[in-house]
Amino acid sequence: MPGGSSIDKDLGLKMTVHLDGMASASTADTNTTESTDTVSVPHPVNVTGKDTRHRNHGNRVKEEITVIGPESKFHVTPVSEEEHELNNRVPSRPTPELKFELDDEGDTLSNHNSITALLSSKFRDIQKRLKQYGIESPRFRKRLVSRWESLNYDVCENVLYIKEQEKYKSKKWVTLRWLSKWLVMFSIGIMTALLAATIHFVVEKLAHLKFDLIKHYFDDCAKNNCLYQPALMWMGINLVITVAGAALVTFLQPMAAGSGIPYIKSYLNGVKIPGLLTFRAFVAKTLGVVMSILGGLACGKEGPMAHSGSIIAAGLGRGRINFCNGKSISFYSAFRNDHEIRDFVAGGAASGVSSAFGAPIGGTLFSLEEAASFWNQDLTWRVFFSSMVACFATNFLISAINGDPTKLTDPGLVRFNAFKFDLKFDLIEIPVFIFMAVIGGLSGALFVVMNYKLTVFRKRYLNKNWIKIIEAGLVAMVSAAVAFGLMVGINDCTDKAPFDSHAVTAAVYCTDKKHNSLSTLFLTTPEGCLKALLHDPFESHGPVSLVAFVLIFFLLGVWTYGLSVSSGVFIPSLAIGAAWGRLVGIGVAHLMPENPNLGVNSSLIKQLDVGKFALIGAACQLGGILRTTISLTVIIVECTDDISFGLPIMIVLMISKWVGDFITTGLYDMNVEVMGIPTLPFECPPLCDDLRASDVMSHPLATFKTKEKVENIYRMLKEETFCGFPVIEDDPMAPGKGKLKGLIMRNQLLVLLKKKIFCPEGQVPPRNITIKDFRDFYPVYLKVSEIDLSDEEKSYVMDLKPYYNPSPYTVEQKFSLPRMFNLFRGLGLRHLIVTDEKNMPMGMVTRKDLAKFRVGSKRGLVKIEQLKIEDK
Amino acid sequence: MPGGSSIDKDLGLKMTVHLDGMASASTADTNTTESTDTVSVPHPVNVTGKDTRHRNHGNRVKEEITVIGPESKFHVTPVSEEEHELNNRVPSRPTPELKFELDDEGDTLSNHNSITALLSSKFRDIQKRLKQYGIESPRFRKRLVSRWESLNYDVCENVLYIKEQEKYKSKKWVTLRWLSKWLVMFSIGIMTALLAATIHFVVEKLAHLKFDLIKHYFDDCAKNNCLYQPALMWMGINLVITVAGAALVTFLQPMAAGSGIPYIKSYLNGVKIPGLLTFRAFVAKTLGVVMSILGGLACGKEGPMAHSGSIIAAGLGRGRINFCNGKSISFYSAFRNDHEIRDFVAGGAASGVSSAFGAPIGGTLFSLEEAASFWNQDLTWRVFFSSMVACFATNFLISAINGDPTKLTDPGLVRFNAFKFDLKFDLIEIPVFIFMAVIGGLSGALFVVMNYKLTVFRKRYLNKNWIKIIEAGLVAMVSAAVAFGLMVGINDCTDKAPFDSHAVTAAVYCTDKKHNSLSTLFLTTPEGCLKALLHDPFESHGPVSLVAFVLIFFLLGVWTYGLSVSSGVFIPSLAIGAAWGRLVGIGVAHLMPENPNLGVNSSLIKQLDVGKFALIGAACQLGGILRTTISLTVIIVECTDDISFGLPIMIVLMISKWVGDFITTGLYDMNVEVMGIPTLPFECPPLCDDLRASDVMSHPLATFKTKEKVENIYRMLKEETFCGFPVIEDDPMAPGKGKLKGLIMRNQLLVLLKKKIFCPEGQVPPRNITIKDFRDFYPVYLKVSEIDLSDEEKSYVMDLKPYYNPSPYTVEQKFSLPRMFNLFRGLGLRHLIVTDEKNMPMGMVTRKDLAKFRVGSKRGLVKIEQLKIEDK
Repeated sequence: MPGGSSIDKDLGLKMTVHLDGMASASTADTNTTESTDTVSVPHPVNVTGKDTRHRNHGNRVKEEITVIGPESKFHVTPVSEEEHELNNRVPSRPTPELKFELDDEGDTLSNHNSITALLSSKFRDIQKRLKQYGIESPRFRKRLVSRWESLNYDVCENVLYIKEQEKYKSKKWVTLRWLSKWLVMFSIGIMTALLAATIHFVVEKLAHLKFDLIKHYFDDCAKNNCLYQPALMWMGINLVITVAGAALVTFLQPMAAGSGIPYIKSYLNGVKIPGLLTFRAFVAKTLGVVMSILGGLACGKEGPMAHSGSIIAAGLGRGRINFCNGKSISFYSAFRNDHEIRDFVAGGAASGVSSAFGAPIGGTLFSLEEAASFWNQDLTWRVFFSSMVACFATNFLISAINGDPTKLTDPGLVRFNAFKFDLKFDLIEIPVFIFMAVIGGLSGALFVVMNYKLTVFRKRYLNKNWIKIIEAGLVAMVSAAVAFGLMVGINDCTDKAPFDSHAVTAAVYCTDKKHNSLSTLFLTTPEGCLKALLHDPFESHGPVSLVAFVLIFFLLGVWTYGLSVSSGVFIPSLAIGAAWGRLVGIGVAHLMPENPNLGVNSSLIKQLDVGKFALIGAACQLGGILRTTISLTVIIVECTDDISFGLPIMIVLMISKWVGDFITTGLYDMNVEVMGIPTLPFECPPLCDDLRASDVMSHPLATFKTKEKVENIYRMLKEETFCGFPVIEDDPMAPGKGKLKGLIMRNQLLVLLKKKIFCPEGQVPPRNITIKDFRDFYPVYLKVSEIDLSDEEKSYVMDLKPYYNPSPYTVEQKFSLPRMFNLFRGLGLRHLIVTDEKNMPMGMVTRKDLAKFRVGSKRGLVKIEQLKIEDK
Repeated sequence: MPGGSSIDKDLGLKMTVHLDGMASASTADTNTTESTDTVSVPHPVNVTGKDTRHRNHGNRVKEEITVIGPESKFHVTPVSEEEHELNNRVPSRPTPELKFELDDEGDTLSNHNSITALLSSKFRDIQKRLKQYGIESPRFRKRLVSRWESLNYDVCENVLYIKEQEKYKSKKWVTLRWLSKWLVMFSIGIMTALLAATIHFVVEKLAHLKFDLIKHYFDDCAKNNCLYQPALMWMGINLVITVAGAALVTFLQPMAAGSGIPYIKSYLNGVKIPGLLTFRAFVAKTLGVVMSILGGLACGKEGPMAHSGSIIAAGLGRGRINFCNGKSISFYSAFRNDHEIRDFVAGGAASGVSSAFGAPIGGTLFSLEEAASFWNQDLTWRVFFSSMVACFATNFLISAINGDPTKLTDPGLVRFNAFKFDLKFDLIEIPVFIFMAVIGGLSGALFVVMNYKLTVFRKRYLNKNWIKIIEAGLVAMVSAAVAFGLMVGINDCTDKAPFDSHAVTAAVYCTDKKHNSLSTLFLTTPEGCLKALLHDPFESHGPVSLVAFVLIFFLLGVWTYGLSVSSGVFIPSLAIGAAWGRLVGIGVAHLMPENPNLGVNSSLIKQLDVGKFALIGAACQLGGILRTTISLTVIIVECTDDISFGLPIMIVLMISKWVGDFITTGLYDMNVEVMGIPTLPFECPPLCDDLRASDVMSHPLATFKTKEKVENIYRMLKEETFCGFPVIEDDPMAPGKGKLKGLIMRNQLLVLLKKKIFCPEGQVPPRNITIKDFRDFYPVYLKVSEIDLSDEEKSYVMDLKPYYNPSPYTVEQKFSLPRMFNLFRGLGLRHLIVTDEKNMPMGMVTRKDLAKFRVGSKRGLVKIEQLKIEDK
């Protein structure tokens, strides 16, 4: 079995291990799966001397590894696959097949081949065939990128921690800590609301100014045949503002691009996203989103609110603001660990959603959905509190902006609640809704597929900063040009007043106090456009205008999402859906006989119907594109302000999700996949039950003794990329075979080296370090290159005892993959040490080792994929 | 330190263990805390020979224990506390103080006394003082009852399981399993809806008949001076029906009493509640609730729906119906384990709530709230689906009952959605709402306290079945008598037509086409009464009637809850709150100047205001009594059908919860506490961080060897009450000192004994047992008394290897309490084995050992309590 090694478990008491290939992915670009090295060495493997060791992550070149087993000493030379020989820097050698018997009493597990081997052989087949046709491309979806580190929610209960706990071991401190958590949550809510209201105010005012200006030129020039003037002006304004916004995002903090929701979801899932929750990201995000909307892009300001809220939460939680040049202001440090910050970020994301959509319950669920496995009632209650505060404060502030602060009628930035009559639906309408949901699912999937192709194209060819900025400017100009073309070309005139009395309406070529129907859709923000589509009278928008609008806005939406600007995809998705929903509504109104039983005049019914269909269409489209589940439903229901209409909304969201999932993943998931972020699914994929800890763990292990030479530590940190190292008993009789004592993190070691907590052998080690010193480096940790050690210092010894976590989670080698999933999801683990029967560490399972296993779905076929970990 | 043993951890490398008292609670009734035996034996403790061993659970008499340590062999005699000497069957002896040094290299943990000892000494002080004053009572709240077993959500991955997995290791089976899960969820939704609609229809029709009859007698007799006739008739009807309902519940399945929500919450938390999810409970619950309401008790049919839905779910999940005489029909057994059944029950509870209140989101959250730590997205989606189906089907069925199945306007059994105008609120009303929330919190706490006293009284004096039935009948008669007295006594006449055009209105003494105002409240179901209070016109109910109603209904509500009948507390709570909310509304309407700016006539405003205040009052009262958090909010908001009014509802629910929590726990929590159900809180109580696994574990351990004599197994099962036994390596050189091999459950052993899976020593053991044989016994497991073994069979040997779980969760002895909480909550564990450095089992931590630690709150003071485990 070349390339993929496997365990043949005999029914009897022998275990045969084929060490015929450590990892086949020497040049992994063309190799779709990485074969886990399922080498199950029954005894701890330790490398002595100066050998450089590499685990099976990524496509690093494997070198000779000395493995010291209990019975024998042997050399393992990794062998590359045949088809990679040319690219291989290490020439392939005959494979030494090693067989040894386990001294384990044996187990009676049934004999089956590892599913890993089965899978990888299949993938190789497909790959070979692809090569025959010359189709070979870097893959962006079926991989994880190794640079994404995981967060660690487990508490390191070392001596320093216990000492600190002692200090605060009184009811006073417990109460104070409890109170300050609530206070921080309250502040998060208030500040998010302030931000939301400010953005709303600024965008509305400035956009109105901009479109008013264009409208006047339009109306003047239509008479004087100078329509090129408003067109050029429009394009010019868009270009300048958008380029500014794109430059801000690109140069200040690229993580601020897009809606930020995929990143926030990944963060809550347990992945560290560098730069995501920084002050720079905040500036780029908030200013950027204002510029994106003023720049005329097809995007909304709602999605980014979740990101902004999260940054506020992280900042308040950390009690520190980092400015540009490494300067920072620090207030308090009690909450500086992954666990507490994640809790605050959950509150911040919920507040952001809550103030954007006026949906406190939806916002809470939004945070809960991703982080559900670490959830508890107390935290739910706090998150709910902060999102309620955010909703209430936003309501108050926007009502105040609108003139009457005591009438609390605007709980969020965007609301669909202006239906003049109760939304009622009849059972016979359900089939129509289901039909619409199928359309929504299909078109949503099309949106995702197109955006995926575009994203891959961008990643490959448009990866220079200046190209990104130019592309953003181009999109802004095209947006204006196309809108201009449609307005002038279709010239759909209507005399129906738009729903929003402040809306900008241009006449263009229309006369008799009529106005151009498309002007109410294009001479406004995307949000205003959505409102118009939902609430404008029945006759406002003709079918031709709507068809044109749907096509154009769909393409612009696809093109805009993924630009290097701060932009949300909620509003454009809803607007696209509302437009074709309106089309369906018009169709239904024409097909159906007018109901003679109702005493209301027919135009009113049509008006209501059209709004209803627009709303359902919007929900379908959003569901087809995003596929978020229960939280999205609640958000839309809360936005609609009408529970009884929630039922059809739920139905269409479920169906559009199913239809969409049949074809491809959702937009956010696609984003996460393209970035190679190792998010952990909630459950182990099916058919993987027979994988054991020994199959997925990385090994041999890089371990430290409880008293380790500084030189060894320094070298190990430099050479290895691992973030956690088991600490073993220092047994001079059998070096490297000690029992597990604990687990120490890379970050801790770096701080210890930086603070020079070591001494010559035999002396008493310095202990002048507290847990606060570690916190001061959170979350921007040191790099090895920042450590400066003299040769004398390198000969010193570091006592790791007070610093390592004395009780890390360990499992036994036969522990199954599904249960490891439960452990990692349930506890927010980052490292799990696999030990043998004698409590000696055998290997390490990390979050990424599990995230590799994923259920893929393509054209309705479910398959299990084992992703590869790449360096980039 | 008598009674409580402790660990003094020196800063140095020695650990001193005082074995001066194994467990003090010999007669534990008067002992408020059980001191955990914090004896930390660094080596596995095993008992040889025929010694009976007892762990520190409950008040069993401790006997001599032979502990074999690695260094010495010593005898430990448990010593009782001084004050218990009289009751002690074992005379106290001088305490052997044992000191030995750990062979562990030592740890530098700081020296502090165990908080356990500190706490227990404090409690003893209080107890002594209570004794001085002769106040000594069995405590019902500060204890756990040992008979409640925990559920086990972990998969036992033994050879049988792996074999079965092999069989189904294909995409076809995976898909089939996935589909059948969805199908079961769908069926749960449909059947719950059918049940809800049926109950609704039956209750509404019969109640209308009953009250119509009484009304006619009333109106006739008011003229003819024979009012004793309707009074007696009313009381008679109530008595007969209620006694029948109470008898049904009491004799068929007492678990069907009350709303069932506390039990369902406990079940979802992870506690096995025998009889809760049986067919008998279903019959008693559904028929019982119909009788309770027809019997005129102050209760609702909504709470019990959650229980009924759960039973339906459990039945469908198990694929088996157990009838009375041990007969059953079995369909399929694939889902027969705690994990799958819990998932279905979550769906069933959600469906029940959803069809009761038309609140699919609220229902989902209701299930999620308690089970959040084992939650995942896939399950959320399924639960949401089933509750949506239930809501939709209920809507369809009730609309059909009401005449038009295609107008889907009744999504639940109870709705507050009939407000004719949009519910709007103004910022200046918020202080009034807050004031009402404080009242709600206070009166809710009063409700809980009164009901608690009553519950304790009932438990002590009214514990005979016939007394329970008589009490129920008495309550029913008093309910009728009091209602009659109020109607006749107050004689509040009104000419306003009630909101519900079908409502029964009696004139009694009123003339001029007026009717008795209280008759619309009493001659209806509690649900109709709630509707009347929310929606009746402003002038319908005078302040005197309302005050009388509030007082009477409050007392009746307290008295009714906890009767041995099937009854819900939602509706009476809401009705009480709505009544006093209406009072507040009337007060505000009289105080406030009429707003001249509004063009509507003032009576309309009053009408609206009064309904609004009634709604807020209802929310406040419910929040004060129940204190459920986010799910309750969502349920009420969904019931109200108006999101914008959700904000004030959220605010008052939060405040009423806070105010109530300041005084006492919520009603459901009180119930759980009184029953001594060991529910596990979400987080470890504060100030317990320094407790370690070695402090809370039970030991010495009862262990089995991998090949164990049948006699030993049988004896151990008979003598011990533990449900999990570690299996250790069979080392003939050092008996009882083997390394941990796995964990076997009591239930497994019983099945193995029953099926006689053993053989004489040296022979090949029979293997004719599959995992289905184990499932057939789920969930009603065998008892030891059902096992019948001959003497020859007792000498046989059982090979446990294929049956035990080879990779149980283990932790190291220094593992801290908060992290153990995370493990148990995050993974739904039942047993956790504590091992030493050499992987030998030292002790066992069970769910109950953690559930003992709880944050108590009384009069605003937070304290940490360590509960005692009692046998009853």
